[in-house]
Amino acid sequence: MQDVVKLTPRHSGAGELFQLLRDGRPRTRADLAAATGQARSTITARVDQLMSAGLIAPAGEASSTGGRPPTTFAFQPSARVVLAVDLGATHARLAVTDLASVVLAEGEAPIAIADGPDAVLRWVAEHGRKLVAEAGRSLGDLVSVGVGLPGPVEHATGRPINPPIMPTWDDADVRGLLSAELGGADVLVDNDVNLMALGEHRSAFPDVDDMLFVKVATGIGSGIISDGRLRRGAQGAAGDIGHIAVPGAEDVPCRCGNLGCLEAVASGRALAEELRREGLDAADGADVVALVRAGDLAAGRAVRQAGRELGGVLAACVSLLNPSLVVIGGVVAEAGEHLIAGIREVVYARSLPLATQHLRIVTSQARSEVGILGASAMAVDHVLSPVAIDALLEARIA
Amino acid sequence: MQDVVKLTPRHSGAGELFQLLRDGRPRTRADLAAATGQARSTITARVDQLMSAGLIAPAGEASSTGGRPPTTFAFQPSARVVLAVDLGATHARLAVTDLASVVLAEGEAPIAIADGPDAVLRWVAEHGRKLVAEAGRSLGDLVSVGVGLPGPVEHATGRPINPPIMPTWDDADVRGLLSAELGGADVLVDNDVNLMALGEHRSAFPDVDDMLFVKVATGIGSGIISDGRLRRGAQGAAGDIGHIAVPGAEDVPCRCGNLGCLEAVASGRALAEELRREGLDAADGADVVALVRAGDLAAGRAVRQAGRELGGVLAACVSLLNPSLVVIGGVVAEAGEHLIAGIREVVYARSLPLATQHLRIVTSQARSEVGILGASAMAVDHVLSPVAIDALLEARIA
Repeated sequence: MQDVVKLTPRHSGAGELFQLLRDGRPRTRADLAAATGQARSTITARVDQLMSAGLIAPAGEASSTGGRPPTTFAFQPSARVVLAVDLGATHARLAVTDLASVVLAEGEAPIAIADGPDAVLRWVAEHGRKLVAEAGRSLGDLVSVGVGLPGPVEHATGRPINPPIMPTWDDADVRGLLSAELGGADVLVDNDVNLMALGEHRSAFPDVDDMLFVKVATGIGSGIISDGRLRRGAQGAAGDIGHIAVPGAEDVPCRCGNLGCLEAVASGRALAEELRREGLDAADGADVVALVRAGDLAAGRAVRQAGRELGGVLAACVSLLNPSLVVIGGVVAEAGEHLIAGIREVVYARSLPLATQHLRIVTSQARSEVGILGASAMAVDHVLSPVAIDALLEARIA
Repeated sequence: MQDVVKLTPRHSGAGELFQLLRDGRPRTRADLAAATGQARSTITARVDQLMSAGLIAPAGEASSTGGRPPTTFAFQPSARVVLAVDLGATHARLAVTDLASVVLAEGEAPIAIADGPDAVLRWVAEHGRKLVAEAGRSLGDLVSVGVGLPGPVEHATGRPINPPIMPTWDDADVRGLLSAELGGADVLVDNDVNLMALGEHRSAFPDVDDMLFVKVATGIGSGIISDGRLRRGAQGAAGDIGHIAVPGAEDVPCRCGNLGCLEAVASGRALAEELRREGLDAADGADVVALVRAGDLAAGRAVRQAGRELGGVLAACVSLLNPSLVVIGGVVAEAGEHLIAGIREVVYARSLPLATQHLRIVTSQARSEVGILGASAMAVDHVLSPVAIDALLEARIA
């Protein structure tokens, strides 16, 4: 992210101090001095800087052993807002959140990602500005934007790379286009599944350091949290498990051009196709889920078998990554226990005891909000980093 | 590692300053003040602390624009030494290195890991002390020890967890036993393949942030470098790819009790067994390599097929992790191009273009030294962390 915020050689250190306060707990100047080993005069100066930028505020008095009780200071998540954008092939969800990722205003609408970056991003900016106003804030309060796209993204530049379902977006300057429309706010872009992993991690499992989030929808993908952080790999393509080969499916063609890919046998699209061949009325994963919920046996059986196919691939992922948690999200996960049961069956059968003795496999807790929460978290992390805080304070002084 | 070094609430900040100097480049006090934004008086005090501990030393004068030229200071890797220990099932390798992982003295010997932790670690300590003397240093200079073990290790505690080939080591207090014999030096323990990954990364590919190191020997395992650091997973079992299912090998029993594991079809042990069935004389992976090098066609064919089986599993690993480099090490990798060719054949056929467009697959550059280099790097990282440096300086003052 160094290409977004310019690091000034003489940073103030206030950004570093601020990290201690991000947990929201009120602290006195003496607490901060003890925690950092910095002189009281340094702490006082930095606290004043952070206060004048509105990032922290007095939060009452600490108990005192005599004399005037000292003031405590705490993070003010309402100091600024971010815009979270979750774009799918045919659907967009937008939210304005505060710096604690609390949603202040949100909206969703059908879109066509195929309309291309100019049209779609102009629409996003327009609706984003409306949501900022709806949240009672001005564009000057908007410090960053997090965008999830349904395809591979080079995270460092925010540019999509050969995205199969949105070819007109290849190498588009998503950052530049959106920033220009939104008062120059910094724009961060990532793959939608990475942001779902981040959203699930932050909102439901913040204490789990090693987890895998798997989206089972029209396509299949995953996002990796390792040592507490999202891992994107060398080209931002980490987690792309939809085209791993499934044993025994060598004769099933995949839309990627290969044979026997996981997506070709276990995605919402593949399940719907299979049920149509059995004479059922299923256009997509949501229809498959509806059939399962209506008690259709063939649909339940097909989803359970898809779970087993997924389980074969996830067993390999579990062996490689040794997560303590696998979260299954995406529309097909809403079929409930059928999918998870199939996954568990194979993962537990095919893994070494050490990798599974503390392994949980669960469905997403954050559900449809998960992409927005991840986009917000990415945008917030960016503006609250030590370097970004120092740059913000510097800009105020200059 | 917080359980090894006690963090003092008022740390001096010298440890943080030292991180800037770890690259070995000489810097003036003014350089350090500019880079950190700290006051000259603070820098002067911290430089003095680091000098008095011998961690940095004057390194000549910088050019001056007038007046007395300022002194530069640089990291002194010879300030302390670490002991690197690489234990296999039947073989041990030990080295004393400086803080830049330069080997000062080394030795190797046959051992039997099955003799158990007390006997083996006593032997390690005895030979370690000899090597320290041989390097012309005293036990007081030895600040930490890095140990690689041929089995799963809980890194936070340094204890082996149900290690299949060394059952008597289960839950052994490797840290406590070895530290007591080596003047109280901190002891860090990890799985041998993780340390091979770390050693290869640091010595041959320091600029590659996302790589996978694969060891193909009697068993098969891997170590993951992601965003520049070794990732161990929730229980320290990450990279354990030897028991991932290989399509089409469902009838091959593995010593783990499952069927069709990668290790059962592509390890040195499996290859030797296969060649014995064909009437060849091969006890282990080294014999297989010797046959390949002697031009034996059956051996070459078997190694290439093992490469393909490995390639199937590595294609899944590449899809999941998106590394830019896969390094193949271990004794079977010394069979040369036969193994790599089989691996490449399947990985490139079975991966999405985005994951492989910048992917290199190569044999280990560090070869037999790689485990020792990794053990040294782990031990050095531990003692040169900001917290550890501050603790060391504190101990000198107290």
